[in-house]
Amino acid sequence: MRERERGPAREIETEHYEAQQGHQGCVVWLTGLSAAGKSTIATHVARRLFEEGSHVYVLDGDSLRQGLTRDLGFSPTAREENIRRAGEVAKLFRRAGFIVLAAFVSPYRKDRDFVRSILDDGHFIEGYVSADLDTCIGRDPKGLYKKALQGAIPEFTGVSAPYEPPLAPEIVLDTTAQSVDQSVHAVIDLLDARGIRKARARG
Amino acid sequence: MRERERGPAREIETEHYEAQQGHQGCVVWLTGLSAAGKSTIATHVARRLFEEGSHVYVLDGDSLRQGLTRDLGFSPTAREENIRRAGEVAKLFRRAGFIVLAAFVSPYRKDRDFVRSILDDGHFIEGYVSADLDTCIGRDPKGLYKKALQGAIPEFTGVSAPYEPPLAPEIVLDTTAQSVDQSVHAVIDLLDARGIRKARARG
Repeated sequence: MRERERGPAREIETEHYEAQQGHQGCVVWLTGLSAAGKSTIATHVARRLFEEGSHVYVLDGDSLRQGLTRDLGFSPTAREENIRRAGEVAKLFRRAGFIVLAAFVSPYRKDRDFVRSILDDGHFIEGYVSADLDTCIGRDPKGLYKKALQGAIPEFTGVSAPYEPPLAPEIVLDTTAQSVDQSVHAVIDLLDARGIRKARARG
Repeated sequence: MRERERGPAREIETEHYEAQQGHQGCVVWLTGLSAAGKSTIATHVARRLFEEGSHVYVLDGDSLRQGLTRDLGFSPTAREENIRRAGEVAKLFRRAGFIVLAAFVSPYRKDRDFVRSILDDGHFIEGYVSADLDTCIGRDPKGLYKKALQGAIPEFTGVSAPYEPPLAPEIVLDTTAQSVDQSVHAVIDLLDARGIRKARARG
């Protein structure tokens, strides 16, 4: 190819995307038990930021397991690979300047720490979506706890597989004590404090 | 969580992204031998569309193999999984309304057909970046053919592993006969013909 004709094109870097979009990218990683409220919070935050004109994307475990991670099960090793891939995808969207809301049970501390390690400082926000097990069992919107307690789903986090809460998350969202609105506001306030949200939308 | 307080948030669907961005998303999948010019064309097309204000992302084999597919080698099975993951990631970006330029050797027809199968009709554009092997060996910008011909790189496409050209690609970019500019224009003309590029940028 006669490359010299016009020289190589400049690759589109994160700062180019961010300049075009008017805000920085980051990854808000929501971890917690099934039914703790991760996806609900992610969807609400995303919708609000999207309506302000921000570039935002929700990644969640259920939808990823229908495609990218459909070959993986729920053993500790498979969960590690599941979170590794999810983290790498979050990194690609963050590279494109997106605010990524990632909702994954991600029960192992070391797997979440891996995701933190591949993202730059200050652009990984770990949110612990906290609800006690009894509350989650009481909600059980998909009937998964019922099945897990009957032994029909093996390796179910909180029932027959461990959950390791974050030791120093950037934010704790206690969905037993606070409403969806309160959790959504708390995330958005944190994005404001970090200077990540569109300047004209802050207030 | 007191979901009823405000009802569930609407998920952000592809049509919402496209409405915000002013253009449709799609995946332009560039396949061909190493050094055929896939990444060069992808980068030039992406830069041009980006400067028009479009949402565009380059995915290429080299960078993906530093992260998402770092666990994979170059056996037929590993290549299949490499392209499966790349296709699933392209689908996520297309879901966010992006024009994705995907540059992958992707030597097997069935693997490319898998990617086509997971994207909607009309939004997968297979581009065959065609250059004969001697031309690619002559270019060899990374010295890979030299190593492969010496036997230092096993399973190298075109040398010690097969390449199956597309039978009915949406576009053929013959980089032996035409310049980078001509290939870039050909891709952009096709996006125009499909109504994918920003309306105000066409012409």
